[in-house]
Amino acid sequence: MTPFSAADQRFMRRALELAERGRGTTRPNPTVGAVIVRNGRVAGQGFHERAGGPHAEVAALADLRGDARGTTLYVTLEPCCHTGRTGPCTEAILQARPARVVVGCSDPNPAVDGRGIRRLRRAGIQVDVGCLEDDARAAIRAYAVWIAQSRPLVTLKAAATLDGYIADGHPRSRRAPAFLTGREARRVAHELRAAPHAVLVGAGTARADDPRLTVRLPGRDPRTGPLRVLLAGRGRLPARLKMLRGAPPSLVLRGRRQDLRRALEALAREHEVQSLLVEGGATVHGAFIAAGLVDRVALFLAPRLIGGGVPVARGADLPLAQALRLGPLSTRTVGPDLLITADVVAV
Amino acid sequence: MTPFSAADQRFMRRALELAERGRGTTRPNPTVGAVIVRNGRVAGQGFHERAGGPHAEVAALADLRGDARGTTLYVTLEPCCHTGRTGPCTEAILQARPARVVVGCSDPNPAVDGRGIRRLRRAGIQVDVGCLEDDARAAIRAYAVWIAQSRPLVTLKAAATLDGYIADGHPRSRRAPAFLTGREARRVAHELRAAPHAVLVGAGTARADDPRLTVRLPGRDPRTGPLRVLLAGRGRLPARLKMLRGAPPSLVLRGRRQDLRRALEALAREHEVQSLLVEGGATVHGAFIAAGLVDRVALFLAPRLIGGGVPVARGADLPLAQALRLGPLSTRTVGPDLLITADVVAV
Repeated sequence: MTPFSAADQRFMRRALELAERGRGTTRPNPTVGAVIVRNGRVAGQGFHERAGGPHAEVAALADLRGDARGTTLYVTLEPCCHTGRTGPCTEAILQARPARVVVGCSDPNPAVDGRGIRRLRRAGIQVDVGCLEDDARAAIRAYAVWIAQSRPLVTLKAAATLDGYIADGHPRSRRAPAFLTGREARRVAHELRAAPHAVLVGAGTARADDPRLTVRLPGRDPRTGPLRVLLAGRGRLPARLKMLRGAPPSLVLRGRRQDLRRALEALAREHEVQSLLVEGGATVHGAFIAAGLVDRVALFLAPRLIGGGVPVARGADLPLAQALRLGPLSTRTVGPDLLITADVVAV
Repeated sequence: MTPFSAADQRFMRRALELAERGRGTTRPNPTVGAVIVRNGRVAGQGFHERAGGPHAEVAALADLRGDARGTTLYVTLEPCCHTGRTGPCTEAILQARPARVVVGCSDPNPAVDGRGIRRLRRAGIQVDVGCLEDDARAAIRAYAVWIAQSRPLVTLKAAATLDGYIADGHPRSRRAPAFLTGREARRVAHELRAAPHAVLVGAGTARADDPRLTVRLPGRDPRTGPLRVLLAGRGRLPARLKMLRGAPPSLVLRGRRQDLRRALEALAREHEVQSLLVEGGATVHGAFIAAGLVDRVALFLAPRLIGGGVPVARGADLPLAQALRLGPLSTRTVGPDLLITADVVAV
């Protein structure tokens, strides 16, 4: 049973919606939204827009009409208590003194991790934690993975036939590439590519398909978009790969299979990459699965059967009892194709 | 634009529902339903219950209260005009003389195929063909495949991980079989198994899993159910396979891969099998795909990733341009798993 009223949940939902406005610009900070309520009405609101700029609570306090005393502050993430590029939010809140603070979820950052909540409580403010907690945690999932594991959140994306093949085993014709999925699915694939901090393919895919890995959507400059990453072993690469030319920036990540986690840590540390879309091929997918480095899956299924070819993932060969387990499979019809998305759950 | 009124469609829907009551007992005949309408009200109805028994039109006429003159007869399938085990329906209709006959779809049986409709029209009865035609055709799909191709309708059934593997590549433990899908999906799989005239597995699956291939559902005698078919090459089979013992009946179908169509024709000819559920393994699925002998797919997807193992189908290796094409992918959530069904469409 939740201790939060319908009104609490409604205001927290509003704060979560505000948080989304910062999606993509707050890096390396998480997205956060805040709403201040007086007598059942929103009296101020704000969200974290970019690193170095005001945090959501401070933005909401600045937006507030009138005195904060007697109000309730809803904030999607625990207020920080440490001085980063801006001062600690807890002090700003203590100065304003709302009667109550409702928090979506605690901050997994070890520099905060409950300290912000304790600081407010010790100063006599009522703090209720866990309102719409699942949604609040989901909203900062990439940040949480980055904080806890020093690596980006990894989404594995593939498009396959219904019988599980991402390509046939026949040499591809450059003249007439046989698209597996329809136009709508390819557009949605570009939308998926626009969201993360980086996209990655393996050397085999780079050689076979020579993809640009740019985001091609109407009204969008294809030179903006996530960092393009080529995962390669020690072998030589073709001289002129499209993904290594022009903008957005690109890099070659060298790493043998057993070094995959370290390679991702380097990507997070050196390039502030908190979210990574892995776009193939089968061997790369298998390596991520084998290393347990998959957090999400986005699988397009095309209404085709070919009975053999290049599988979605190979080389991991986990026993079923050690399979990566996924949460609920969400489905969405995309033209003639199906998009299945799911989160990997901790075993 | 359909020439059929909302009332026409409503009565044909009723006739299609009646037809379903015969599902499973009419073999080798198709399921058929009929409704007789007088002044906008149902005055008689019937369906074909079993081969040798009255056809749907005759049953509806027998059920009719009062005179058939001035009524409209709705029948899901074109009335027959040839004498089989019962007399031709066209003559019974001509004797009763309804004012109008509305037909779902024509009978693909070359012994009928429009002749029944022409016979009625020549005798001065208004006949309108094609009311809810897609549904009417779908209801007799197995019969139509059997008539046109002298083989059963083939449904390929598999349960796989989201990355397309029906089993891991590790030796199976008899003590603790690792189920891929959940309890609900396994129950639905037994429901799927109850519907066709026969179920088939390959020798590899028989050896590895030794399945019973019986229908195990609450309140149902497991000794009743579809014919159990073992598809085997010329190799030796283990002496005591569960699927070859007890009831329901079973048989070993010998056929090399290139003879698959002929083996299915023999199954249809000698055992009146009009619908066949193929339950694996990967090589058998591949052989059916390679031969173009798949009409439907039912794929359970489990929320797991293993990155390698036994694929859904192998050995066909069709180029993408020659893939079997499927119609709309229908999805249904079954416990934690997903059931995707689709029909193969003619290219």
